[in-house]
Amino acid sequence: MRIKQILQTKAEEQKISVKGWVRTNRDSKANAFIAINDGSCMSNLQVFVDKEIVTDQDVLRRAATGASIEVKGILVESPGQGQSVEVRAEEIIIIGDCPEDYPLQKKRHSNEFLREIGHLRGRTNTFGAVVRVRSAMAFAIHKFFQERGFVNLHTPIITASDAEGAGEMFQVTTLPFESFNSQNGIDYSRDFFGKKASLTVSGQLSAETYATAVGDVYTFGPTFRAENSNTTRHLAEFWMVEPEMAFCDINGDMDLAEEFLKYIISYVLENCAEDMEFFNKWVCKGILDQLRGVASADFARVTYTEAIAELEKANAKFEFPVSWGIDLASEHERYLSEEVYKRPVIVYNYPKEIKAFYMKLNEDGKTVRAMDVLAPGIGEIIGGSEREDSYETLIARIDELGLNREDYDWYLDLRKYGTVPHAGFGLGFERMIQYVTGMANIRDVIPYARTPKNCNF
Amino acid sequence: MRIKQILQTKAEEQKISVKGWVRTNRDSKANAFIAINDGSCMSNLQVFVDKEIVTDQDVLRRAATGASIEVKGILVESPGQGQSVEVRAEEIIIIGDCPEDYPLQKKRHSNEFLREIGHLRGRTNTFGAVVRVRSAMAFAIHKFFQERGFVNLHTPIITASDAEGAGEMFQVTTLPFESFNSQNGIDYSRDFFGKKASLTVSGQLSAETYATAVGDVYTFGPTFRAENSNTTRHLAEFWMVEPEMAFCDINGDMDLAEEFLKYIISYVLENCAEDMEFFNKWVCKGILDQLRGVASADFARVTYTEAIAELEKANAKFEFPVSWGIDLASEHERYLSEEVYKRPVIVYNYPKEIKAFYMKLNEDGKTVRAMDVLAPGIGEIIGGSEREDSYETLIARIDELGLNREDYDWYLDLRKYGTVPHAGFGLGFERMIQYVTGMANIRDVIPYARTPKNCNF
Repeated sequence: MRIKQILQTKAEEQKISVKGWVRTNRDSKANAFIAINDGSCMSNLQVFVDKEIVTDQDVLRRAATGASIEVKGILVESPGQGQSVEVRAEEIIIIGDCPEDYPLQKKRHSNEFLREIGHLRGRTNTFGAVVRVRSAMAFAIHKFFQERGFVNLHTPIITASDAEGAGEMFQVTTLPFESFNSQNGIDYSRDFFGKKASLTVSGQLSAETYATAVGDVYTFGPTFRAENSNTTRHLAEFWMVEPEMAFCDINGDMDLAEEFLKYIISYVLENCAEDMEFFNKWVCKGILDQLRGVASADFARVTYTEAIAELEKANAKFEFPVSWGIDLASEHERYLSEEVYKRPVIVYNYPKEIKAFYMKLNEDGKTVRAMDVLAPGIGEIIGGSEREDSYETLIARIDELGLNREDYDWYLDLRKYGTVPHAGFGLGFERMIQYVTGMANIRDVIPYARTPKNCNF
Repeated sequence: MRIKQILQTKAEEQKISVKGWVRTNRDSKANAFIAINDGSCMSNLQVFVDKEIVTDQDVLRRAATGASIEVKGILVESPGQGQSVEVRAEEIIIIGDCPEDYPLQKKRHSNEFLREIGHLRGRTNTFGAVVRVRSAMAFAIHKFFQERGFVNLHTPIITASDAEGAGEMFQVTTLPFESFNSQNGIDYSRDFFGKKASLTVSGQLSAETYATAVGDVYTFGPTFRAENSNTTRHLAEFWMVEPEMAFCDINGDMDLAEEFLKYIISYVLENCAEDMEFFNKWVCKGILDQLRGVASADFARVTYTEAIAELEKANAKFEFPVSWGIDLASEHERYLSEEVYKRPVIVYNYPKEIKAFYMKLNEDGKTVRAMDVLAPGIGEIIGGSEREDSYETLIARIDELGLNREDYDWYLDLRKYGTVPHAGFGLGFERMIQYVTGMANIRDVIPYARTPKNCNF
């Protein structure tokens, strides 16, 4: 039995055996209180040791912070506060000792320090909670889409397509660097794939190929940006969720995005109550109220043009000036959701100049059917669009932007053979975890962060 | 409503609207039968067109194979065979035309040809079924572990650790190749991560760090091998499932592997009945019986030494001779499961020389607590082990094999601070899909295969 289950069990003086790691050992003359944790939940299980029953002083000394132990004893109601049950030890067995240079002694450590011991930080309250909430959110994502008949699609990680255009790419190669010579040039025919290959920045274009085959699909996998951004919101390697729906327009896309966000948040509130209480108390006060608000709000929906008008008449001083045509900055996004609408707001129909080539052009010829979900406390959390489904219009956009038609052969085929309106969006998983947990630095919501000059463990 | 739901609906002459792609259009003088498919299931929905009701000849001509259409009409019981309901059309709307050069005309195409049009093959019966079954299996994997309290862990894709040692690695870089010069050497301090980085070959070592923090974890993500293997069983990019359990020995590991395989297979049999019937009929006759057999069998468990004895007394001619110490070849693995035990068999306690350094050494000093699950029709499907949890023994193994202690600093810490018995295994997801669907070539069970000289789409 794991501690999570034990803590939910009614104590009827039954015999139990439990294994875990010692968090604290308060040793006194006649008895000792050992708190053990096995990572199944935030709470420790308290072990009461009567030294007349457990007489081996050496075992009690070795049951120090960080040691792994097995406790055999009786599950009883706890007389103390903070737990309903505890174990009256009959036998303690040391599984693995823990020497005194263990970096995770009782005191509180900074997140910066804990990043340096990434292989151990999962043993702390904060990072145990992060990884449990992350896991619950990952499952909620799969559950949401599977319940709605979406097909989980694994789009390629290594790609030779430059067509994605969403950011700087990492190159993937097996060429022996040592043999390179700038005079001879690079012979990609000798590389593993026979041509230049990179890590994907988005699964969207591939997802469109399957959405126009089996209807509704979603990807959930790692994506990459080789951008030299050292901020609390950027990772070089992060996980992204990208649904794509056939026979769906911008309105259906907004409906799904709203339903999706509420579902994930409600799932976490329901299934991770203890960990979420921890974040609310120690990491980000008020996060629970904020999330409950999002889960129960009707999201506002306004056009980009309306949003700009709201910002222009705003009684606020923005760092970046506002006028029709600008890309919204984080300050604008937060002002809209926090001050104007006081709830999440979906802004749609953006100027085509600031959005990607594949987004569906509106009849006005100026705006495209893009939509961004802006949430209080964070700004943009989801970005999506209806895709251009007209072969002729897409070709014209590709030409207009000076892109190569040949690079988009297969993508254009989807518009040539039985084209359908389709739409989708992308959600950066780590930003969503930051939003849900209130963790300030994105490096702290993924087990091992990859950022410029940092690829440890 | 999608076609999967419509086909399960009781026909009561209700009005419906349905969208999909035309598979066939049998047009005759007085009426037409149009079969449409939307990818929600294998079956088409039959549309009956009375030309006195739908009078636009041009629309009927354009509703050709591959075109996307909307049909408005009445859902009625079908008088024909093969379907319980059909739609009596009142109006047909062309959403997207499909010209005659559409590569997916009615005739059957070879899988080789379909690989060349990977962006369209999801529209065929076979590849629609593959991606639906793949998605169901992916969800079953998450469901299995989440129901058992495992934490889903996203281990890094880009790694600077050479410690994994499971195969040839792809290098990941942002260095401008053009500036290289073999005389100057490579200045990795200028690379994105400030050192040489590669694509992961396994998440296991990272998984161990979190298993010894939160107990039971599993990874399910892409892994990579830069091996020049052009076979029907190798991909350069494939998805792998790797559970890792704290406080677990080789026996618990075998229990979990058996339970896991049965669960995935049962889930697919239950949730993908129509697609599985298709595979049983057209792709691999008898696959359903084989899978039902695996789902209900008690797996045999034998030591490597016993398995070798069985092979030595076998009345079979093997290409590779058998003696204690050899690595089992596929022919041996299949002989054991198909001829000797006639069911899946788990072989454990392998000679240490043929297994990885991190596997727990047995008391005999000769064998390690490795285990492989061998299944009829395929051979090895799962490989795992109890991990070496003794700091001293692991150090000795690292030295013995001439590895660098420094490379394993953080891995050794797990044995230094509160070590626990722990175990896990790996399952190649695409091989499992091959096993379940009977698809002969691994390139055909992933949307876009990456193999030597092949990185298309």
